[in-house]
Amino acid sequence: MSEEVGKRVWAVGDCRIPGWSHGPEPEMQSHEGLSFLNASDRDAELELEVFFEDRDPAGPYDLTVPARRTKHVRLNELRDPEPVPAATDMALLIRSSVPVVAQQTRLDSRQAENALISVIPYASD
Amino acid sequence: MSEEVGKRVWAVGDCRIPGWSHGPEPEMQSHEGLSFLNASDRDAELELEVFFEDRDPAGPYDLTVPARRTKHVRLNELRDPEPVPAATDMALLIRSSVPVVAQQTRLDSRQAENALISVIPYASD
Amino acid sequence: MSEEVGKRVWAVGDCRIPGWSHGPEPEMQSHEGLSFLNASDRDAELELEVFFEDRDPAGPYDLTVPARRTKHVRLNELRDPEPVPAATDMALLIRSSVPVVAQQTRLDSRQAENALISVIPYASD
Amino acid sequence: MSEEVGKRVWAVGDCRIPGWSHGPEPEMQSHEGLSFLNASDRDAELELEVFFEDRDPAGPYDLTVPARRTKHVRLNELRDPEPVPAATDMALLIRSSVPVVAQQTRLDSRQAENALISVIPYASD
Repeated sequence: MSEEVGKRVWAVGDCRIPGWSHGPEPEMQSHEGLSFLNASDRDAELELEVFFEDRDPAGPYDLTVPARRTKHVRLNELRDPEPVPAATDMALLIRSSVPVVAQQTRLDSRQAENALISVIPYASD
Repeated sequence: MSEEVGKRVWAVGDCRIPGWSHGPEPEMQSHEGLSFLNASDRDAELELEVFFEDRDPAGPYDLTVPARRTKHVRLNELRDPEPVPAATDMALLIRSSVPVVAQQTRLDSRQAENALISVIPYASD
Repeated sequence: MSEEVGKRVWAVGDCRIPGWSHGPEPEMQSHEGLSFLNASDRDAELELEVFFEDRDPAGPYDLTVPARRTKHVRLNELRDPEPVPAATDMALLIRSSVPVVAQQTRLDSRQAENALISVIPYASD
Repeated sequence: MSEEVGKRVWAVGDCRIPGWSHGPEPEMQSHEGLSFLNASDRDAELELEVFFEDRDPAGPYDLTVPARRTKHVRLNELRDPEPVPAATDMALLIRSSVPVVAQQTRLDSRQAENALISVIPYASD
């Protein structure tokens, strides 16, 4: 049932890695996560740009989402060209070579009990 | 006031059944839930595909949402053609025979106090 | 700066009033809430239908969102033509006489610490 | 990779600053936040209107999101033309001079453990 579903451009207005954590890692470590679905028969090459309030954007960060696969990444895992800072107000722009579906999910365990958010970012062609 | 509202294709980028739970079942059991509204006069036949990071997709799983009804399912209830694993990064693609509206809601009770997320997945024709 | 912003049809796939509560009322009472923005110069007359898994829909429930106003309602406040049950899987379909913007927000205080979800429902013309 | 991504009109149906807080400020102070991504090469001039249930809208509040930057604001920081009240049901309408992407994120620390919501508001041209 292969099919191209989604968009090539995704934008996250509120990106932030919470500054500290409670609970066992990696499950309960505070993180800002991005998940992608590539339902197509072609690998998706993604470029991710990180925007800041007071400096030029960082990136691009390169990601591959193989054909007919999902990929879940945490922003603190990105190291090239530079680490993504914690406790910093950011935004994201993602471009993909083929249509994909993105979802942002943040786990905030700064307090003893974790809080979660999840959104479908803004999609564009 | 019968009407066809929604789309035929729905995609979830971040699907995950939390790995453990606190609190009384079934209310407080960690789960990944999908809810559907079929406002039309025709039954909706749904096919759900589960995508993984490191293997081919599972499914299709068949669901029926009767005419003028809602249906709420938990992914751990799906058994055919195979159970949906917990604590695994996944994504979902859902196709319906008639337009429906989908919503994803996850209850995460891995810690003593539960956390919730809910999103309208990405919709397509 | 008056303007007509939004859509005339809104659909909620996952509607549920949590079955019990902790904490002071009304702030911390579990509830399923709907909020509307009517940015236009005309009053918006809304009809809300409640869908179930095992019976015909309830409603319509009538709501008015005055011109240039917001309205926030909790589903447990709706009494006519019948109360909306708690601890029941439901979905919603809302029709408005003029374009409005809707948002669903649920407070779940079944455990000592509350959890929140908020989504923009599916919009249609 | 400069580009104009997003929309010029954004609407939030459910806006509310929680009435009290637990935990260290400013991180754990209850707040209603708005984040914007301006991926374009032009500064974005924003006008924000606050809608109420029982009075005329307040505003406009003026914000600038510089070119190629993000901006994260908390509604309690807005002072001109008047402060935005807490514990009050509100809605928002935002107009921008260039396309931007908005996201709403609320931290509710009225109880000891915080709860979070985040949504992409309704977008229009």
